[in-house]
Order: sequence, then C-alpha cells, then structure tokens
Amino acid sequence: MVSFHRRPLPEDLVAFESELGRQLLAEAIAAGTAGAFFPLVAQLHTQADPAWCGLGSLVTALNALGIDPQRPWKGPWRHFSEDLLICCKTLEQAAAEGLTLPEVACLAACNGADVRGVSAEPGTIDAFRSDLRASVTAPAGPFVIVNYDRAGLGQTGAGHYSPVGAVHEARDLALILDVARFKYPPHWAPVERLWQAARAEDPSTGHPRGWLVLSRGTSSVRPLCALPAEG
Amino acid sequence: MVSFHRRPLPEDLVAFESELGRQLLAEAIAAGTAGAFFPLVAQLHTQADPAWCGLGSLVTALNALGIDPQRPWKGPWRHFSEDLLICCKTLEQAAAEGLTLPEVACLAACNGADVRGVSAEPGTIDAFRSDLRASVTAPAGPFVIVNYDRAGLGQTGAGHYSPVGAVHEARDLALILDVARFKYPPHWAPVERLWQAARAEDPSTGHPRGWLVLSRGTSSVRPLCALPAEG
Repeated sequence: MVSFHRRPLPEDLVAFESELGRQLLAEAIAAGTAGAFFPLVAQLHTQADPAWCGLGSLVTALNALGIDPQRPWKGPWRHFSEDLLICCKTLEQAAAEGLTLPEVACLAACNGADVRGVSAEPGTIDAFRSDLRASVTAPAGPFVIVNYDRAGLGQTGAGHYSPVGAVHEARDLALILDVARFKYPPHWAPVERLWQAARAEDPSTGHPRGWLVLSRGTSSVRPLCALPAEG
Repeated sequence: MVSFHRRPLPEDLVAFESELGRQLLAEAIAAGTAGAFFPLVAQLHTQADPAWCGLGSLVTALNALGIDPQRPWKGPWRHFSEDLLICCKTLEQAAAEGLTLPEVACLAACNGADVRGVSAEPGTIDAFRSDLRASVTAPAGPFVIVNYDRAGLGQTGAGHYSPVGAVHEARDLALILDVARFKYPPHWAPVERLWQAARAEDPSTGHPRGWLVLSRGTSSVRPLCALPAEG
C-alpha cells in the first residue's frame, strides 16, 4: 500500500516555518493582523481521521474561543475533541462522507458558538476579505474556517476545511493553519486564490463551498439539533 | 465528580495569547530566540491521556523534527501519535505510572531521534540556559523538552513534561508549549524558576527531574529497546 510522510508544499505557497514564513508572521504581528493566530495556534488540532477536517477545524476553533463543552473529555477535564461533537451527523457518517458547510455550521451552533456561513458565490471576495480582516485584527475571535478545494491551491486532495490565523495585507497572503498537519503543516497562500478555491462546487450539495465565521455564543452549549434516528 | 475547564494561570506567569504574551513573542522573533517556536507550535499536540505528558511532548518534538515514523498512522499517512510510541513501556503502564526521564529518552531514541538527557543536579543552570539557547536560536531543532514539577511554577499538579519554543532573554522568560492545553494553554515562565522546578526529585527514580535535548537522528527509526516481556 502506498503511504506518505507529508506532501511537498507547492512552490508558490510559503511554509510557516521557512525563513520567509517566519518573517511574514513577524510582519503580520507588527501590522496587527495576526490576532487570531495566537489563540488558534495554541489549540491547533490534528484532524483525527482523514475525513474529519471539518471536525478538526471545529475542535481548534471551539477550544480557541474558550467555550466550555460542559461535559467531560478525559479524566476530570472538559475540552473539545472530535468525539464530543456528536450532533447533526454521526462520527461514522462524517468519516464516510465528510461534512458539508451547513453540517459544520450546525455542529458549531450545537456546541455553543454563534456561527455565520457564507457560500462563496461570485462577487463575495470583498465579504471574504472583510470577514478575514475582522478575525485577524481581533485578539480572541471571531475565527474564520474556510472550506475550499485543495486543487485550487495546487495541493493533492479535494474538499478541505482549515482555520485562518493571520493575514499579511501588503503581500495579500493568508496563514492557513491546516488541520492535516501530517500532510501540509501551516502555510501562507494568496487570499484571492483561497477564495477562488472556496468557490469550487461541493458535489454533496451542488453549491459552492465557502467559509464560516465563529464567535463565542451568548449562551453556552445549545443542543439545537439531534442526531438523525438510527436505521 | 469534580471536573475542570482549564485552570487559572498563576498571575506571575504570562499567557501566550495575552497582550504581553504576544509582545514577548514578537520581541523574541526579532531577537532570533524563537526559532524552535515555529516547527514546535506547528505540531503542538494535546496529550491524549492525563498521564501522557511525556508521550505528548515526544509526539510534538518528533513531528517537529520531521522524522518519518516509517509505519502508518491512519489511512495512508505516516505521522507520530502516542500509539505509535510503543517501545520501552506499554501505553497502559505509561497511563498508570507516567514515564521517567530515562524512559522518555529511550522512547525518543527508539523512534529515530538523537537524544541527550540531563538530570537537573545543583549547578546545572548554565547548562540549562545553554541548551535552551542552542535550541531557540536554531530554526529546526534541536528541541528541549523539560521535565519539571508543576508546583515549582505555582500550578496544580505534579511531574510534567513540555517542550520550550522560545526564550525572551531580556526578561529571562521561556515559552512553555504546554501539551496539557486543556489545563494551561502556552505560557511564559521565568527560566530560573523552570530550572528550579526541574530540580525536584522524581519519586519514581529518587533523582532530580531535568530535561532532554532531541535532534534528528542520523539513522531513522532504530528499535534500540524492546517492550518488556509480558507477565
């Protein structure tokens, strides 16, 4: 069986830990456009299954928002992991099918976040930039999770989710905190290409992909939707 | 049953995501003493069991070193997680007893790292500073994992392991990338207090705790030691 230890990052993207990547972060911090980076990278989580990029992104964002799951994780600790995100869809279904943008939004809402989903229809580039800017200039959310087609960034794979931690406005780059760290560790990508990659149709919905904006909900965990009945 | 959503960080430590914490990182990057931060935080892993801080720190450091585990993790991907670190001690024993510094060193060596362990005997503060400096001024390892008693930092809990990502030399602070992110997200602590906390005796060995220096081995995975025979 063919197996992989990471995949080479396309040459027109910038690795977070490269010399240029380190410089871009320093400049984004200085420009005040890396606010989201700190809480998100502090909780950046590796998706626990190859199809759980939506769940892994949610685990990262919910923990970064400091939301209390109000139920135990392990031992005496309350902390989000994929297996606490049971709502809207079973983990088995998520592993088999992945998750659509509305399903990830549903899971976010069930677990105590205020969430807004945007479909990347034509003409939404300004809204995308505006949501990214509002996120990266704030120190503790809202956070943006982008749902995009990896092909649009020249990467192997298809539909994917990851949060964005920072923007470098002068070079028009976004720092993707990729939850598939076993494949592509964090990297910078052009904002416009990321938006174009989010415009790709999701075959499960027949609609474009897009992005989610998550913030700390006013109430805590709210079971808005139940698991579909079995059988 | 009493349960917790994080623990309050002692007031004399500095949270990574606080305004001061963000400033300290920017200054450490500018001073060239945050080299280790980038690869380590890109792979910072939450310990998967309350007693697996040594394993969680190793997962972080081995992935940050870019070592190929040469065996599958999930799907087609080769990536370190705790359950790949089977060598020297079973996971069940590690969960029940924790791991001593020599046991973590053994696991690191089995899994392809060159490792040097230092017991925090009296008079080793200069060696500690020197190992930290060599780590944080390099862009891709060696990496330092400290084994310390949380009580020495005013934290709840006892023996713990975590990697250090950066040093702020002017303020003499070290950035602890705590693998128990469900309890204490990353934070800055005084270097000398961290060394003092590493001087505490480990009741399992009767010797002081200390630190490990890990770098990419010249060979890859080397099964230096086998699991103890069962029964």
